[in-house]
Amino acid sequence: MVSKQILDDIQNSSAIRAMFIEGKAMAEKVGAENVYDYSLGNPVTPVPDAFTKALKYVIDTEDSLSLHGYMDNAGYPDVRQKVAENLNQRFGTDFDAHNIIMTVGAAGAINVIMKTLFDIGDELMVFAPYFTEYRNYAGNWRGKLVVVNPDYSNFQPDFADFEAKITPKTKALIINNPVNPTGVIYSEDTIKRIAEILNRKQKEYGHEIYIISDEPYRELVYDGKKTVFLTKYYDNTFVTYSFSKSLSVPGERIGYMVIPNAMADFNTVFNGLAIANRICGFINAPSLLQKAVARCLDAQTDVAFYDRNRKMLYEALTRIGFECVYPEGTFYLFMKSPEPDEKHFVEAAKKHHLILVNGTTFGCPGYVRLAYCVQPDMIKRSIPAFEALAKEYHL
Amino acid sequence: MVSKQILDDIQNSSAIRAMFIEGKAMAEKVGAENVYDYSLGNPVTPVPDAFTKALKYVIDTEDSLSLHGYMDNAGYPDVRQKVAENLNQRFGTDFDAHNIIMTVGAAGAINVIMKTLFDIGDELMVFAPYFTEYRNYAGNWRGKLVVVNPDYSNFQPDFADFEAKITPKTKALIINNPVNPTGVIYSEDTIKRIAEILNRKQKEYGHEIYIISDEPYRELVYDGKKTVFLTKYYDNTFVTYSFSKSLSVPGERIGYMVIPNAMADFNTVFNGLAIANRICGFINAPSLLQKAVARCLDAQTDVAFYDRNRKMLYEALTRIGFECVYPEGTFYLFMKSPEPDEKHFVEAAKKHHLILVNGTTFGCPGYVRLAYCVQPDMIKRSIPAFEALAKEYHL
Repeated sequence: MVSKQILDDIQNSSAIRAMFIEGKAMAEKVGAENVYDYSLGNPVTPVPDAFTKALKYVIDTEDSLSLHGYMDNAGYPDVRQKVAENLNQRFGTDFDAHNIIMTVGAAGAINVIMKTLFDIGDELMVFAPYFTEYRNYAGNWRGKLVVVNPDYSNFQPDFADFEAKITPKTKALIINNPVNPTGVIYSEDTIKRIAEILNRKQKEYGHEIYIISDEPYRELVYDGKKTVFLTKYYDNTFVTYSFSKSLSVPGERIGYMVIPNAMADFNTVFNGLAIANRICGFINAPSLLQKAVARCLDAQTDVAFYDRNRKMLYEALTRIGFECVYPEGTFYLFMKSPEPDEKHFVEAAKKHHLILVNGTTFGCPGYVRLAYCVQPDMIKRSIPAFEALAKEYHL
Repeated sequence: MVSKQILDDIQNSSAIRAMFIEGKAMAEKVGAENVYDYSLGNPVTPVPDAFTKALKYVIDTEDSLSLHGYMDNAGYPDVRQKVAENLNQRFGTDFDAHNIIMTVGAAGAINVIMKTLFDIGDELMVFAPYFTEYRNYAGNWRGKLVVVNPDYSNFQPDFADFEAKITPKTKALIINNPVNPTGVIYSEDTIKRIAEILNRKQKEYGHEIYIISDEPYRELVYDGKKTVFLTKYYDNTFVTYSFSKSLSVPGERIGYMVIPNAMADFNTVFNGLAIANRICGFINAPSLLQKAVARCLDAQTDVAFYDRNRKMLYEALTRIGFECVYPEGTFYLFMKSPEPDEKHFVEAAKKHHLILVNGTTFGCPGYVRLAYCVQPDMIKRSIPAFEALAKEYHL
């Protein structure tokens, strides 16, 4: 007698993992070297030495009772201050400790923000294609997901559709930047237009509409491109961050959120967030991990590795004749299905031992996602399979 | 424009912390050595060496990418197997890895269970006096808290009140064993009577009623007494555990839950829990911490320290004339207020620089809680203050 919602969640939650499991089963049959699994977004580049050194250093030098003890629910003040200063240095912002709450990853941060903001039936807007978990997070807090269409020419949002779908119940817009699954970076122009529309709607409705900018891939950007820092463009912005990808430590669940001074009712919002961090069951971000990341805020995993994969995969697929969204960041590539029903295409690919994820999972039918956080050799070996698949479609 | 619920939470959440902050302010005025702060349940005994050694060992020996990487949302299979075997050894149970889910502390585990079970309006029963966060956890999942009166003679539950308050909407009963704030252990007889009543009500209503046995203080028991392991007495039982108290590592957020084979619809429930662990934003328990605790499952902080505090405080207070519940576990003592309005008594105590927490916070007016996880010297120094306070009440 589990809840009705979790029964739905069990039903719907498995699209990506189902592909991963199919890939594993296939590998047992035909050999792992003959399966080209692009299903999971799991970091594969080394954990920076700086992180391991930082862990050891804090274990060796800090008093164990305080190192592993409770602190303010918002996190250690010195850690929050270091995170703030690092952001200021990199993005020209002006934060200090009181603008930062350490969290159990970005997923924890988003849930804490939604717990703080959402009444039953409030609406969370997302730009398709969107990270599938956002639907589940909305469900947790009994919010309603509202999906905005993309501009298919560049996978920036469709602004007319965005504006048309804002209602008096719109509580927040969540932006993933750069975007899982397209790898697109929202341009400064896009951010300015979003801010202009939301500011206008805030005035019209007489209450706040928030942006949650979810940035776990912020450091995984290529060609010298960068995301813009959203608090500079829109006051009621929360930025959520995870060290999962930049340090290759997704199992450790360590991240933070930023609350700018310009946030309406800053104190109430901050107090709500700190309490929600506790109430949701996180209590605080893991204490040892807080202290460790604070000592290696500029460390990064091998981003060039993903960049090489990106180029190899994009060049091969477009050469073969597939239509791909040009990935500017993340470790995902979004490819147009050569037939309208991409689920059928995913099945066809499977026959060539290519494991892809259907775009419907991300609210964007007609496309498939490839996660290229894989060994380069797998990409090389997969190219003939893509060529054979393309032939079937007369590309 | 935060949610209505979080506004309430901000209002209500601060009773214990407010006392702690008042104590701090008082310490600045009159000197820390003259303030006797019994407000916070924060471990003060050393972190066992075995834990620190385990941390270093896994950092030195495991591949960093897998040590800090994603695993199944339920946790590392080898860690779950070790936890199961340790429980079997200590409690004569028969678990293996598939009965265990590693969680972000017990608070994380309880929220994951409630997310899995609760539809809007379902009822969570608690035995007064109860850990205040249970009210907030019910709020997260839009459940309704139903408070059962204690038998004031022994602070076991009032069984007649318990049975009378069970309704068709009752989804779960949460038991904290041993109990924060009374320090009482629920006897085997109590557990049997609870199981008998719930089994009868399950039949009557034709659906499951679950027990969530929250056991973060399981190892903090005295006089050779022990809690019984609830899965042996009632099939639909979840046990939640945190290493926060036994290892003095509350900041690390590491714990687990147990789901026995006898649980109705085991597979659906387990799948729901694993997905909820992810969806709620935990994803998984911190990976390094999982590996570390698995290597020191029998380690314990200095329980004798708390036992000495317990005896000293209980003996002094009863000698002075206060009526106290005899604490069999935890590091809390529950004392009857000498006047019916214990909030007034808390104010009177404050004038003697004694920082206590009112029982209303725990759903039990007329009593106050003292957390004796403090330095023994503070207890000694506080005794004259209690004596002066007692005089005011002609004890």
